[in-house]
Amino acid sequence: MAESQALGAFLDDLASERSTPGGGGAAAISGAMGAALVSMVCNLTIGKPKYAEVETEIRDVLAKSEKLRAELTKAIGDDVAAFDAVMGAYGLPKGETDEAKAERTAKIQAALKIATDVPLECARLCAEVVKLAEITADKGNLNVVSDAGVAVQSAYAGLLSAALNVRVNAKSIKDRDFAEGRLATLESLLEEAGATTEKTYDVVKDKLG
Amino acid sequence: MAESQALGAFLDDLASERSTPGGGGAAAISGAMGAALVSMVCNLTIGKPKYAEVETEIRDVLAKSEKLRAELTKAIGDDVAAFDAVMGAYGLPKGETDEAKAERTAKIQAALKIATDVPLECARLCAEVVKLAEITADKGNLNVVSDAGVAVQSAYAGLLSAALNVRVNAKSIKDRDFAEGRLATLESLLEEAGATTEKTYDVVKDKLG
Repeated sequence: MAESQALGAFLDDLASERSTPGGGGAAAISGAMGAALVSMVCNLTIGKPKYAEVETEIRDVLAKSEKLRAELTKAIGDDVAAFDAVMGAYGLPKGETDEAKAERTAKIQAALKIATDVPLECARLCAEVVKLAEITADKGNLNVVSDAGVAVQSAYAGLLSAALNVRVNAKSIKDRDFAEGRLATLESLLEEAGATTEKTYDVVKDKLG
Repeated sequence: MAESQALGAFLDDLASERSTPGGGGAAAISGAMGAALVSMVCNLTIGKPKYAEVETEIRDVLAKSEKLRAELTKAIGDDVAAFDAVMGAYGLPKGETDEAKAERTAKIQAALKIATDVPLECARLCAEVVKLAEITADKGNLNVVSDAGVAVQSAYAGLLSAALNVRVNAKSIKDRDFAEGRLATLESLLEEAGATTEKTYDVVKDKLG
C-alpha cells in the first residue's frame, strides 16, 4: 500500500533503477495532492460567515474532492499492478506452436489494454480535480487562494503525466479502434483541462494582486 | 520531518483545515518527485552499452538530481517553518508605544522576507530539475523516456506552485526594492523553465511516436 509508505522511502523507490513506482505513480500523487489542496481550501471556507452564500456548493466540492483523493491514492498501486502485468505477459515463454504463440500475444495485448485504461482513468480523475480547483479559486476563502492555484497546477501535471503512460501503452496495441478511441478521449480531457488550468492560474494571480 | 511521514497521512494533513502543510509543501514534493524521476532515468541508462557514449554526462546529471532531491525534500519543512514564523510575528501583541509597534512591524517584515526567499529557493531548485529532465529526455534510455516527461511536468508544476507563494508574501513587503528584485528573479526562472518544459514534453511525445 503506497499510502502507508513514508514519503522519503517512496521518493527513494521512485529514484531507483526499478521500473515501479515510476511516472504513473508520480502522476497519481500529483493528482492526489491537487485533490487534497482543493479539500483544504474547502475546509477553510466552510463555516466562515463571509462565505455563507457559497457554503452549500463548497460542501459539495469537498465531498467530491475527498472521493477523488481516495481514488487517486488507490491509483498509485493500480499503476504498479498494470505495469507488472504487462511485464509478466512479455515474460511468458514464447511457445513453439502457433496456438501457444497466439495465446502469449493475446495475453500481452490484454495486459496492454489494461495498462492503457489505468492511466486514462488517472487522467480522468486529475481532470475532475482541475474542475473543482477552478471553483475553489473562484469562490473559496481568498486567504488561501494560492493553495487553489497550486491545486490546479498539481492536478494538471498529474493529467499531463498520466497522458504519457496512456500514449506509451496505446502505441503497442494492435486493436487500433480501441487505441484510437482511448487517445481521442485523452485529447479531449487534455484540451478542456488545459484551458481551465490556464484560466484558473490567471484568476489566482489576479487575486494575489 | 515530512519525509518520515506516511504518504497517506501527509495527504490527510494537506487536506485538513490547518494551513500547513499547504501549497508550499506540495510544490516541494512535486519538485522532489521530478528529481527522483530524473534519477530513475539516469539509473536505467548508466551501465547500458547502448548509452556508453553519454554515460559520463548522465552520471553527472544523477549526482545533481540526487542533491536536488535532498534539498527539495528538506524544503517541505522549510516552508512550514517560514509560514509559522510569519503567523507568529502577526500574532505578537500590537504594543502601545510607537517603539513597540515599530518592533512588531519590523519582525513581521523580516519574517515576510524569509517567507519570500524560501519558496523562491524552491522555485530555483525546481528550475534546475527542469534542466536535468531535458537532458534525460534527450539522451537517456529511450525505454523510460515517458518518465523523463513526467519528471519535467512535476518539476515545472513545483515551480509554478512555489511562484504563487513568492507572490503572496512579496506583496506585503514594504521594502519594494527587495520585493521587486525577488519577483524579477522569479519571472526569469519561470520564463526559461516554461520554454524548456514545453520543448522537453514535445521531445518525449515525439519519441513515444
